[in-house]
Amino acid sequence: MIRPFILSASMTKFGKLQESGRNLAVSAAKEAIEKAGISAKEIQLTIVSNAFGFLENQIHIGPIVNTSLGIPEVPSLTVESACSSSSGALREAFVNVAGGFYDVVLVVGVEKLSHVSTMESTTYFSMGSDYPYEAIAGATFPGLYATIATAYMNEYKKSDEILGAVALKNHHNALSNPKAHIRKEISYEDYKNSKVIAYPLKLYDACPFSDGASAALVVSEEYAKKHTDVLISIEASTRAGSTAALQDRSDLTTIPGARIAAKKAFEDAGITPKKISFSEVHDCFTIAEIVALEDIGFFPKGEGGKGAIEGDTQRDGKIPINVSGGLKAKGHPVSATGLAQVAEVYEQMTQNANGRQLSNTEYALTHNVGATGGSVSIHIFRRVR
Amino acid sequence: MIRPFILSASMTKFGKLQESGRNLAVSAAKEAIEKAGISAKEIQLTIVSNAFGFLENQIHIGPIVNTSLGIPEVPSLTVESACSSSSGALREAFVNVAGGFYDVVLVVGVEKLSHVSTMESTTYFSMGSDYPYEAIAGATFPGLYATIATAYMNEYKKSDEILGAVALKNHHNALSNPKAHIRKEISYEDYKNSKVIAYPLKLYDACPFSDGASAALVVSEEYAKKHTDVLISIEASTRAGSTAALQDRSDLTTIPGARIAAKKAFEDAGITPKKISFSEVHDCFTIAEIVALEDIGFFPKGEGGKGAIEGDTQRDGKIPINVSGGLKAKGHPVSATGLAQVAEVYEQMTQNANGRQLSNTEYALTHNVGATGGSVSIHIFRRVR
Repeated sequence: MIRPFILSASMTKFGKLQESGRNLAVSAAKEAIEKAGISAKEIQLTIVSNAFGFLENQIHIGPIVNTSLGIPEVPSLTVESACSSSSGALREAFVNVAGGFYDVVLVVGVEKLSHVSTMESTTYFSMGSDYPYEAIAGATFPGLYATIATAYMNEYKKSDEILGAVALKNHHNALSNPKAHIRKEISYEDYKNSKVIAYPLKLYDACPFSDGASAALVVSEEYAKKHTDVLISIEASTRAGSTAALQDRSDLTTIPGARIAAKKAFEDAGITPKKISFSEVHDCFTIAEIVALEDIGFFPKGEGGKGAIEGDTQRDGKIPINVSGGLKAKGHPVSATGLAQVAEVYEQMTQNANGRQLSNTEYALTHNVGATGGSVSIHIFRRVR
Repeated sequence: MIRPFILSASMTKFGKLQESGRNLAVSAAKEAIEKAGISAKEIQLTIVSNAFGFLENQIHIGPIVNTSLGIPEVPSLTVESACSSSSGALREAFVNVAGGFYDVVLVVGVEKLSHVSTMESTTYFSMGSDYPYEAIAGATFPGLYATIATAYMNEYKKSDEILGAVALKNHHNALSNPKAHIRKEISYEDYKNSKVIAYPLKLYDACPFSDGASAALVVSEEYAKKHTDVLISIEASTRAGSTAALQDRSDLTTIPGARIAAKKAFEDAGITPKKISFSEVHDCFTIAEIVALEDIGFFPKGEGGKGAIEGDTQRDGKIPINVSGGLKAKGHPVSATGLAQVAEVYEQMTQNANGRQLSNTEYALTHNVGATGGSVSIHIFRRVR
């Protein structure tokens, strides 16, 4: 197997943006190409994610990105896996490079949602659930994650204090990220007083609907060594699933696919969770971060909320989590999220995370969840030199 | 590289169906698994294509298929590439097996369209074009392919006789395919008298909007040898692109991506077009078949229409084309089309194409086009034993 490397990664500002999805995608792609210092002509395959492209009447966005980059002859593909779309695309890029099929693969994630209302966005998002059994019954994602939160808080006798701590931490982290959607410090009172959107989840438990794009260049080891001094290898790229509907699971306090993918990722990387320097995890709702930390193995079951309260997952803690602000505050442009996590890893490992730079950046882990875990991707990166 | 094989392939009946897309997808998957005589538990990765799933409010269909098959933990992915979606999925399955990542990959293509009107379907399809520059200007796919037909007929001084001959051939072929959407012989008079939908294209130049699903199991050589006596190898799996919009091309009588993908496919397979026993090509409109035959290299430029008139591309001709009835008459459930071509290859190579069985089935080529060629996939299959 050829070891794939991240030659560069980028993201646009996240938020309510005026640009079209296609323009955002091309911007992110061009920034990744520019950072890598290569010509677009070097790209051999383009994989794009844009789950809700139909909201702009545009599917089949790969040829549009490639035509804009001046490489229309290059094959392209769109990969969708709900909120884990672009980490799914990253996995395919990994496979294409590791298998020796290509040396240079461009991966792009993009979403444009702000031209539809929040109510409509919630409805569109629910297409990622087991629609006839969940959404039609009224269970959109706030409701589904509220069900997970209720089960978790009941099982481990926790109050919403743990949720609030995650919200405060990630809002605080986003203050240092100029590309974050929401850059606003919140107090525990603000959190407690925010309106309930699906009990026990409040507004400040939820990530915003964002527009944005992200991109990365995944290249072979040989190509990376020729084109950069900072070598970031992909030590593991794993994916696994869970039942499409929450109702078919025996335990709601864990996401089975996340446990499987994490276990395999640590095996592939040959390390334990303790080795990870920092991690970006899928906090579409605060409860999701807590469950993620346990599923990955950073904390034992029932203790995933401790980190934000006691400080271990804060930026200066033992295992900084979502130093970018996470989905919660950096924003969640569905198909751009997985690669935005990689963009944060890249900024940190290249020592360009101004204002939020971590000192230890040898190993990073990204955790990206589609729907309530029907799909989960885990990637482990290492700064080799 | 590990050589990937087609262990089995299947398709549902194509047409206006009552079943939901998800049920059609599961039906096709189960049929492929049953034909292979393996347990679903053997599947290690599922790749699904369903470009217009949002018309049923369902994206992220992989976990739904896997949950229905009793394998929720298996990773899944949705791949979209407009009308070439499921051949794009097949390419990723090829890469995953050839690269040694998995031994057994399930690929599924599905589309459900008949619950929306023909006018709406035309609009939705146009999302696959360069929407703001083509569809908004009024150029939906009938118009874009009419532009190609006009350019072609002008360049090579041809009348619609060549288009009519393709229509008659493929309608005739579909009579022998019980799964075809349109099983109706048409005369040249019927063709000439059918209404113009986008000059010079008439109704009988166009494929129908169909519902349907298709599936295949892509496996490693070792796995195939253990589980079947009929060994069908994938000798080549190539993809290439063209500009997203037709207006950016210098020559409208050819699809650049098809030429690139075909050339590479023959190189990879180590054969010339003359070696191909039969082929399923992308005839969304009659003109598309003619251009395809030239792009692949079966006929010189300007002579792609000869085959249907003189008999070379008829079922008993030198190079039978679309013996299944093609998109034109078998039907075109967008994301099911690429794998339905593979289902025909499988039926022919396993000698199960009752009523339309060809005698020479050693080599087959499938050609699947997304939009007007923004994406093109070519696959070459060989019956090894």
